[in-house]
Amino acid sequence: MLVDGQSFQTVWAVTEGTARVRIIDQRLLPWKFEVVDLNSVEEVAIAIKDMWVRGAGCIGATAGFGMWLAAMEAAGEEDFARGLKSRADRLRGTRPTAVNLAYAVDRQLRAIGEVADREVAVRVSLETALAIAEEDVAACQAIGEHGLKVIEELSRAKNGGVVNLLTHCNAGWLAFVDHGSATAPIYAAQRAGIAVHVWVDETRPRNQGARLTAWELAQQGVPHTVICDNTGGHLMQHGMVDMVITGADRVSCQGDVANKIGTYLKALAARDNGVPFYVALPSSTIDWNLRDGVRDIPIEQRGDEEVRMMEGWSASSNEVGEVTLFPAQSAAANYAFDVTPARLVTGLITEAGICAAAEEALLSLHQIS
Amino acid sequence: MLVDGQSFQTVWAVTEGTARVRIIDQRLLPWKFEVVDLNSVEEVAIAIKDMWVRGAGCIGATAGFGMWLAAMEAAGEEDFARGLKSRADRLRGTRPTAVNLAYAVDRQLRAIGEVADREVAVRVSLETALAIAEEDVAACQAIGEHGLKVIEELSRAKNGGVVNLLTHCNAGWLAFVDHGSATAPIYAAQRAGIAVHVWVDETRPRNQGARLTAWELAQQGVPHTVICDNTGGHLMQHGMVDMVITGADRVSCQGDVANKIGTYLKALAARDNGVPFYVALPSSTIDWNLRDGVRDIPIEQRGDEEVRMMEGWSASSNEVGEVTLFPAQSAAANYAFDVTPARLVTGLITEAGICAAAEEALLSLHQIS
Repeated sequence: MLVDGQSFQTVWAVTEGTARVRIIDQRLLPWKFEVVDLNSVEEVAIAIKDMWVRGAGCIGATAGFGMWLAAMEAAGEEDFARGLKSRADRLRGTRPTAVNLAYAVDRQLRAIGEVADREVAVRVSLETALAIAEEDVAACQAIGEHGLKVIEELSRAKNGGVVNLLTHCNAGWLAFVDHGSATAPIYAAQRAGIAVHVWVDETRPRNQGARLTAWELAQQGVPHTVICDNTGGHLMQHGMVDMVITGADRVSCQGDVANKIGTYLKALAARDNGVPFYVALPSSTIDWNLRDGVRDIPIEQRGDEEVRMMEGWSASSNEVGEVTLFPAQSAAANYAFDVTPARLVTGLITEAGICAAAEEALLSLHQIS
Repeated sequence: MLVDGQSFQTVWAVTEGTARVRIIDQRLLPWKFEVVDLNSVEEVAIAIKDMWVRGAGCIGATAGFGMWLAAMEAAGEEDFARGLKSRADRLRGTRPTAVNLAYAVDRQLRAIGEVADREVAVRVSLETALAIAEEDVAACQAIGEHGLKVIEELSRAKNGGVVNLLTHCNAGWLAFVDHGSATAPIYAAQRAGIAVHVWVDETRPRNQGARLTAWELAQQGVPHTVICDNTGGHLMQHGMVDMVITGADRVSCQGDVANKIGTYLKALAARDNGVPFYVALPSSTIDWNLRDGVRDIPIEQRGDEEVRMMEGWSASSNEVGEVTLFPAQSAAANYAFDVTPARLVTGLITEAGICAAAEEALLSLHQIS
């Protein structure tokens, strides 16, 4: 997508000169747009763990490229298989909730494991990393086309009036390699000339909505309004939201959706007000081994400093700064995700099409081996 | 309640020396505890409008004392009735959603209007202001006693295990003259030796939960944990909340509850998980002229800078500072309240007792003339 009018993806490989992975450092957005080099598996692991990159698809693709670096690093060691495995474990352990991460690492291990020659293995790992990234782009494009139909229908029902969408967190192109999941139908609608407006939940504690989604939408010229996470229920009660669309970090085989903390509350409000609630995801996000998402998806608890602090632009010091929101005498807790039960989800939009959040529908759309 | 071990109320009259109103300046909490003088109706109006004081009961009592200053100021003018009325209008217009404000102003106008002599009128206005404040204290105490029974029952059901409450915004003693509404049962439970723990919603955009409720609870020694507003649904889904209790800015005769934006989302989550959702309020908060709260309670929109900025303690400058959360290129909206429909409310706790959120129950508990 566009940054200052120029096309970018979130992660790519540099093969000329010193082999390395390049990413957009999302920690500095929206204040600074910076591209950084990751020169080792350890740097990739830190970039994933400390959220220089974040979002299901972007993490998966970055891990895929990380495994290319892993193959190169292990190729210089005595025990290639062992060196590869320890690096795979390092990458896999950085974000326990992200199923795309494990998918990319395991796919690389399988692909590389089939090759005897180390030099060929490195080449295969690059091809695999590129394939993972390209499939992510293609999946998001397809999600955009399928989701566009829903927005077109809402637009027709409003006689071409502005379609108001609400989204939570960032499931935009910054969370993938390109296009995004929840944003792909919005960008497709914009290209199709449909009038849209997006309510952007700020998404405490890390404010990915206010910082990333709002920036993305502004860069593409999509009308949008940032709101506090508390606001969506009121908007839906008063007919100011035509559709909720979010991404997903993990979806169980029966359609329960793990996504950024607070998604469940918006799904409840959508149900209470008859507003359609869609979740957009590449099918790689589906965890076929999980059934009851509320019971079985582990919810990451992050450091409480994210709740205690708020980062932003400080006009007084003219740089990114932070303020403490309450004194240390009070405890704080930081649950990163919640699970929206399938019963609250109107439909899942994947690259294969739109289906109900139910096992049979998911299976018939995604023939898995 | 206690501040550094010393008893305080939020607003009181100083009658010795220059007559004036004293308040706790809540804008500086939790960083600085400061008491300030309000020397004129205009200063009272600014203190209410700019939220030096906030919360239904505290605003009402402050307006009551403001009308005492109004009587004194108007007594020095040619047309007493006209001077009084223009000051009443000034006070009434500061916060359109706060029914206690209109109640205090109108009660003062009635009380003063019955007196011919200006000097007597001034005395009556002070007596009336004191009565409004004292009735607020008494109502909160009674709310505490009634609400205590609900917490006692939950404690018994858990065999004396910790009762986890969740609250939104600040309906603590800082929002009243003393004790608070939502906090009164919690403080009563603490005094009764019941083990409680409070999840405190930070309550964006102004963070009254993180700043005020957490500070209050810390000052009284009540165990508590600050969470982002997005978190409550997840906690309720996993049995980590035994009861939700909030205050109210305005309650319709059929039991619809206008309260800080985001309350409705917590009520939905409580209903979805079988968690009791109580609203604590003095009956002065009930607006008997309103029936359908969702349709008819006007929702104040405040300036969007509250959404754009976050205030807190800046370690770098060692003072209260603020950061900008997203660039000016994105629009922002700031709806201050939402309305929780009566169907989601387990019970209303008033000074008269606990009743269902329904017109008949409200009427039978509160015989109005």
